[in-house]
Amino acid sequence: MLELYFASDTCALASMIALEEAGASYETHKIDFAAATQKAPEFLAVNPKGRVPALVTADGVLTETPAILVYIAQTFPDAGLAPVDDPFRLAKVQEFNSFICSTLHVAHAHRMRGYRWADDPAAIAEMQRKAPDAVAENYGLIETSMLRGPWVMGDEYTLCDGYLFTLSRWLEDDHVDPGRFPKVSAHRKRVRQRHQVIRALEREWA
Amino acid sequence: MLELYFASDTCALASMIALEEAGASYETHKIDFAAATQKAPEFLAVNPKGRVPALVTADGVLTETPAILVYIAQTFPDAGLAPVDDPFRLAKVQEFNSFICSTLHVAHAHRMRGYRWADDPAAIAEMQRKAPDAVAENYGLIETSMLRGPWVMGDEYTLCDGYLFTLSRWLEDDHVDPGRFPKVSAHRKRVRQRHQVIRALEREWA
Repeated sequence: MLELYFASDTCALASMIALEEAGASYETHKIDFAAATQKAPEFLAVNPKGRVPALVTADGVLTETPAILVYIAQTFPDAGLAPVDDPFRLAKVQEFNSFICSTLHVAHAHRMRGYRWADDPAAIAEMQRKAPDAVAENYGLIETSMLRGPWVMGDEYTLCDGYLFTLSRWLEDDHVDPGRFPKVSAHRKRVRQRHQVIRALEREWA
Repeated sequence: MLELYFASDTCALASMIALEEAGASYETHKIDFAAATQKAPEFLAVNPKGRVPALVTADGVLTETPAILVYIAQTFPDAGLAPVDDPFRLAKVQEFNSFICSTLHVAHAHRMRGYRWADDPAAIAEMQRKAPDAVAENYGLIETSMLRGPWVMGDEYTLCDGYLFTLSRWLEDDHVDPGRFPKVSAHRKRVRQRHQVIRALEREWA
């Protein structure tokens, strides 16, 4: 059976939502970031990067959200979570996911985890100060040129939707007014109503 | 015909190498970062993000290196650049590419483009100071737990190799001693000798 290592309020939720959308059977293991168990030897043996998510499969461990998401789409093809056999349309899904992980999530991370890129407390504070602007700039791009509506890729729900929802839940904490991005806000509400997403959130909070 | 928008000494080289490895016919358009043509209206019409690479296909424009790379692998299956029909092995390729774009490339970017995440010159200078440590930490992970050898995925050359090479060329500029990472250094030399890579570099410099 698949096993997902996750932590609350992290991007691991995107993988949990995809597993629910796929109708997969999976176990969960909750990592406590407050207790730094992601750096404990037991977890580093699963993921040497000390990060979530990590998905244990029959073939081995997978990390990195975009990789896990497409893996779920390929192994549960009936769920139709991504157009895995259409190279261009799959690439559009991947383009979106890649933007989320390498640009939007990174901008967000400067509010919480500036220590990755600076030691000086003043520099870390400066990153926190600018993070809302950097995050908002990315949502501007999503609003105007990426989110087609009603779902990210248009008429069909894909992996991108759970991933965007996972990040857009943090808008208020990132000190970005969701009202500036009406399409993103409506999308967030739309995803939040899916029963698969409600189940994933319940499982995260359990 | 495919058209690749690129700039010299950027991650766009990874896509150029993949196109050469695939034996693809493609045109190139060089963007001059020094003249900020990536923010010119003509290029923003191609890629609203104002970044390279961008690949123009018959179906539309693709951006983001991990998306472009798998697209090339899927559309040129005979080149065998990724195990596109094996979900787990493809996910391992994607896991590596995702780590490069969201972690290693981001650590590197704090040396050159700290203005994305801070305005205060002192904070930007602090990011530059720490960048070699952050970059080196990532190469430590690649050296010890990701690069199987002789290629990233083991015996077979994949998309990951040209992507890692694209970043590892910057080690010296990132003030990281390549001698600390003998497997990465040997891999860099190995990739540099491939005639497809030589052709991509010639095309980049032309």
